[in-house]
Amino acid sequence: MSAIADLTLKSSIQKKIDLKTKPIGALGTLESLALKIGLIQNTETPEISKPTIVIFAGDHGIAAKAEVNPFPQEVTAQMVYNFVNGGAAINIFSNTNAIDLKIVDAGVNHTFPESMGIINAKIAVGTKNYQDQPAMTLEQCQMALDKAGTIVSKIHSNACNTIGFGEMGIGNTSSATLLMSYFTHIPISDCVGSGTGLNAEGIAKKKQILLEVYNKYSPQTPLEALATFGGFEIAMLCGAILKAAELKMTILIDGFIVTAALLAAKAINPNVLDYCIFAHNSSEQGHSKMLDFLNVTPLLSLNLRLGEGTGAALAIPLVQAAVNFLNDMASFEDAGVSTEIEKT
Amino acid sequence: MSAIADLTLKSSIQKKIDLKTKPIGALGTLESLALKIGLIQNTETPEISKPTIVIFAGDHGIAAKAEVNPFPQEVTAQMVYNFVNGGAAINIFSNTNAIDLKIVDAGVNHTFPESMGIINAKIAVGTKNYQDQPAMTLEQCQMALDKAGTIVSKIHSNACNTIGFGEMGIGNTSSATLLMSYFTHIPISDCVGSGTGLNAEGIAKKKQILLEVYNKYSPQTPLEALATFGGFEIAMLCGAILKAAELKMTILIDGFIVTAALLAAKAINPNVLDYCIFAHNSSEQGHSKMLDFLNVTPLLSLNLRLGEGTGAALAIPLVQAAVNFLNDMASFEDAGVSTEIEKT
Repeated sequence: MSAIADLTLKSSIQKKIDLKTKPIGALGTLESLALKIGLIQNTETPEISKPTIVIFAGDHGIAAKAEVNPFPQEVTAQMVYNFVNGGAAINIFSNTNAIDLKIVDAGVNHTFPESMGIINAKIAVGTKNYQDQPAMTLEQCQMALDKAGTIVSKIHSNACNTIGFGEMGIGNTSSATLLMSYFTHIPISDCVGSGTGLNAEGIAKKKQILLEVYNKYSPQTPLEALATFGGFEIAMLCGAILKAAELKMTILIDGFIVTAALLAAKAINPNVLDYCIFAHNSSEQGHSKMLDFLNVTPLLSLNLRLGEGTGAALAIPLVQAAVNFLNDMASFEDAGVSTEIEKT
Repeated sequence: MSAIADLTLKSSIQKKIDLKTKPIGALGTLESLALKIGLIQNTETPEISKPTIVIFAGDHGIAAKAEVNPFPQEVTAQMVYNFVNGGAAINIFSNTNAIDLKIVDAGVNHTFPESMGIINAKIAVGTKNYQDQPAMTLEQCQMALDKAGTIVSKIHSNACNTIGFGEMGIGNTSSATLLMSYFTHIPISDCVGSGTGLNAEGIAKKKQILLEVYNKYSPQTPLEALATFGGFEIAMLCGAILKAAELKMTILIDGFIVTAALLAAKAINPNVLDYCIFAHNSSEQGHSKMLDFLNVTPLLSLNLRLGEGTGAALAIPLVQAAVNFLNDMASFEDAGVSTEIEKT
């Protein structure tokens, strides 16, 4: 995708914002949000159409050993059933905010019945353990990117222009930590966090294991880094973000795992950032550092650390509010309201 | 109203939250929000019913001179027409988030037609200028509290249990600044901000004027402080907050002006805080200091500085999401999801 660089449109949207019945700048972050979405959609009257969250689920070789995570690997599959049955946090928040929810099996170590209504894009029944060998082959990684792109294209062709991504994968904060360190050059020890709830001893063990893994490999390209340290669900997130930006969709970036996938996507095409809105700041400690690295400020800061796309789902009403004020608020002239004294 | 001190219920709601299919604490602020609303409603299954924003509008004697504000006084009345016509930011956000919106004439310097559909609770056509005399009499102040209480009671009797308050009043950051200093003992010069958009010179002038006003009076009671430095709309906000807490409603606290009114309400009855949710952190610089003084963390931080209840309106979907996850998310047992390894 190309960078967004329409200075004429930028100036006309900003003027439209400034003429609304409010002091200049008084809607703060919502003003820059409205401007960004207008630029993404190349219009002064953007719309949010069929907001959708796609959750990619995958298993991780390292989680089979259960040294880096307090939950057993089978929780990935169990949570997919929970998503399908409507019992997870992301189901509740999607219902609350009228968001379409799609579940993708990117590579769970479980065979789901076909009748279940999830999207089957399984690359394999979990990745290999990168303590021993790369998580996946380059071919598998490319396949994950491509399959995710196809999924996003289909959703887009069904009138969705605003998309958020979530993930489920026991062990995936470890993958995300390795990718974070690779793409940001921040040392592993500063990237590791508690994931789903490790204590200090657990975090120390995780640091040691991930440092060994990190030092074992020297990936030469973004794709090779993704293949070595990924997550099928993380590779798919990367492919999904790239395709959504190519299709000029507004992309809601969730927490630590999704932002790790974005770091890979940005390494492949930096223009992807022009299409991204940062939904929230996770309490997984590495996430703030990723956001600082990208020099971005998220909309919400609620100490979430759940994944599933929950932060993206919670940010949707703010995105809707931003677009609505740009379209529907009266201008000073429309409303017959006096402007500032200095100007009259 | 009484303080909320049901430790048994607190413990049972917290247990319900902890058994949901997520790591302990992973929903962060939304967990404490769900707990608080459960305690306010005295139930493990709270509901948000008919969320409503009430805007109180009033004029200020000091604004007639136009030394403390870049907008002329008539903008208060013009904005009330804008609210009625649906063109203001609060209209847009209320529509976006399915919130009932009520407009109250607390004391605007304008006679509105009766057919307009606003609630007429006018105390007078604007306050006196506290540069010369107290803004209102004690009797007017008590009348404002009482009228606001009646308005809130009526809204409550119409099945609303969640209420936010907004305001419109050219010059009311000056009132709020004086009240802030009085109730927090923070010096005037640290409370003054740019309001709707003063420059450095304007802020310096405002500081000088407000310091003179502050030093002119020695109010002995919260009511006397409100009468001296208020705003009819601020006195009504205070009365509305007190009544809403008495009725065990969940109260969304907006920005600088509403929080100043809350400081007065808290001085009258400290238990009021048990019923308050802090919607956002305004970019009017004194607001952060008020929130620090109250030792509370707001839900949103979007650099808004518009008033009208806009921050409260934008926070409603988070309140709804918190209540919905408490009611509708599956527990580990419901969903057949394994809990943490250490516990199994």
